Amino acid sequence: MSVTKTGSNTTAPTQLLQVSGHSYAYRRFGKGTALPLLCLQHFTGTLDNWDPAVTDPLASGREVILFDNAGVGRSTGDVPATIAGMTEHTMAFLDGLGIRTCDVLGFSLGGMIAQQMAQDRSSVFRRMILVGTAPRGGEDIMHLEKPSLAKHIQDPQNRGYAVLQKIFFAPTTTSQAAGAAFIARLMQRKEDREPPSGPNVASAQVAAFREWEQPGGERFADLKGIRHPTLVVQGFHDEMIPVRNSYWLAENLPNASLLAYPDAGHGSLFQYAESFTKHAAAFLSSDSPTAVL
Amino acid sequence: MSVTKTGSNTTAPTQLLQVSGHSYAYRRFGKGTALPLLCLQHFTGTLDNWDPAVTDPLASGREVILFDNAGVGRSTGDVPATIAGMTEHTMAFLDGLGIRTCDVLGFSLGGMIAQQMAQDRSSVFRRMILVGTAPRGGEDIMHLEKPSLAKHIQDPQNRGYAVLQKIFFAPTTTSQAAGAAFIARLMQRKEDREPPSGPNVASAQVAAFREWEQPGGERFADLKGIRHPTLVVQGFHDEMIPVRNSYWLAENLPNASLLAYPDAGHGSLFQYAESFTKHAAAFLSSDSPTAVL
Repeated sequence: MSVTKTGSNTTAPTQLLQVSGHSYAYRRFGKGTALPLLCLQHFTGTLDNWDPAVTDPLASGREVILFDNAGVGRSTGDVPATIAGMTEHTMAFLDGLGIRTCDVLGFSLGGMIAQQMAQDRSSVFRRMILVGTAPRGGEDIMHLEKPSLAKHIQDPQNRGYAVLQKIFFAPTTTSQAAGAAFIARLMQRKEDREPPSGPNVASAQVAAFREWEQPGGERFADLKGIRHPTLVVQGFHDEMIPVRNSYWLAENLPNASLLAYPDAGHGSLFQYAESFTKHAAAFLSSDSPTAVL
Repeated sequence: MSVTKTGSNTTAPTQLLQVSGHSYAYRRFGKGTALPLLCLQHFTGTLDNWDPAVTDPLASGREVILFDNAGVGRSTGDVPATIAGMTEHTMAFLDGLGIRTCDVLGFSLGGMIAQQMAQDRSSVFRRMILVGTAPRGGEDIMHLEKPSLAKHIQDPQNRGYAVLQKIFFAPTTTSQAAGAAFIARLMQRKEDREPPSGPNVASAQVAAFREWEQPGGERFADLKGIRHPTLVVQGFHDEMIPVRNSYWLAENLPNASLLAYPDAGHGSLFQYAESFTKHAAAFLSSDSPTAVL
């Protein structure tokens, strides 16, 4: 796919938005006539964790907006210990920018916030892309203590981004090579980088996952009310949020297509950035009432 | 998508191939430099059950070959009561045509035969598309006696193709309308039509489904040996072969992508013929070693 580059997460400046006593860090780049695409980030991820191979092609045709929730990166405030709390900050941020309706790409934790936003204020989104995430009432969501993850997270060899290669990618030569390329892309940004998240971010976000695992009434019934055209994307070998969570999500959302990738873990969108951005851009460019790709 | 029409199942003549005392009915149309696409049909389906909205776009760029297995349509012989038996006939047919390697689109029953062929003679296929089907050891495969299906099949109002609208499509206004359009397309062929399948076809094929539900050793382990790039497609609301069978298939095949459609039942490929043929054609046109769309 040939794309005219209209901005990059490698070079876009970090901006600060003041809203109701909070200061939210964000980046905004790209241009085009389509609605902006709000990108909601994964567990402990900052603006620097958005792979330019994903954000930059999507910024051709629309603005891409990357957002640090409260207490993450350079955003002020306490990290909420619930998805609902993170949702309120995201709404306040969009209100502060004056954006009434946009599209959303929610990855992992960010996909949960996107679902809650769609529940709370349907008009905030036109189309949704939910990658590597889970519905409320999902199972085995980010249990970092389980051996398959703990062995990587606790390995002192895996400092900084190195652990992402292990836990976001499948344990195959091909997927691990894609993981190494992903980390190299994250490192392309040289200036104006974010402070990494500390243990306080992790512990509050893990508390939010535990709360999200509790069904709110009849399991998955809340999804029936989210009628937005939705594209659900997942890797079959995701240890952080197993793929059955995407099955439940796409089966119970009334208007969702599912695309699942082989030989991929949690970071399937980064491993297959070319395929993912091709399908995501086509999905976002559609004005069909259905989610059919 | 603009497609130069190079043949149609609405007009292609039915041909007969004599192999080892059997006479196999088939149709062959389309042209192009790509490998031929062998299409393997669903329960009781004949050549006339292939929707031209699916076959005709795929016939641009390649030959499409539709095939009546033994005892179906105008093919002679007894209908085998196992997938293995149907597989032998399909192999004999390809050998008789002199085709050593092709691509395959296996729908429902046809997808099971395609899997068995890939197991038995890996070189027979380059790429596989498996729609609305199940792996050996799958569950709830074509239990026509269950109330959700029996109520339609036993309804005397549902004569001929009318039952397909009920059991291949979801019980929504949109999916039922797609079903009516599907049947209208099947009726476009006016001459040289096939005899409909009788109860002997149905009973032997149901016996084959029951045998296919039995795992052969460790459940789904046999799929690990099928390394062909494979596209698995399914509707979320398939009552005939529930979607979890496609999950098992795509999770356990080492090189499969999954595309699942909203508001669709068993006939998702017919309901979304434009989307399906777009993705199928792109998948077949790829020479990547992976199944990534």
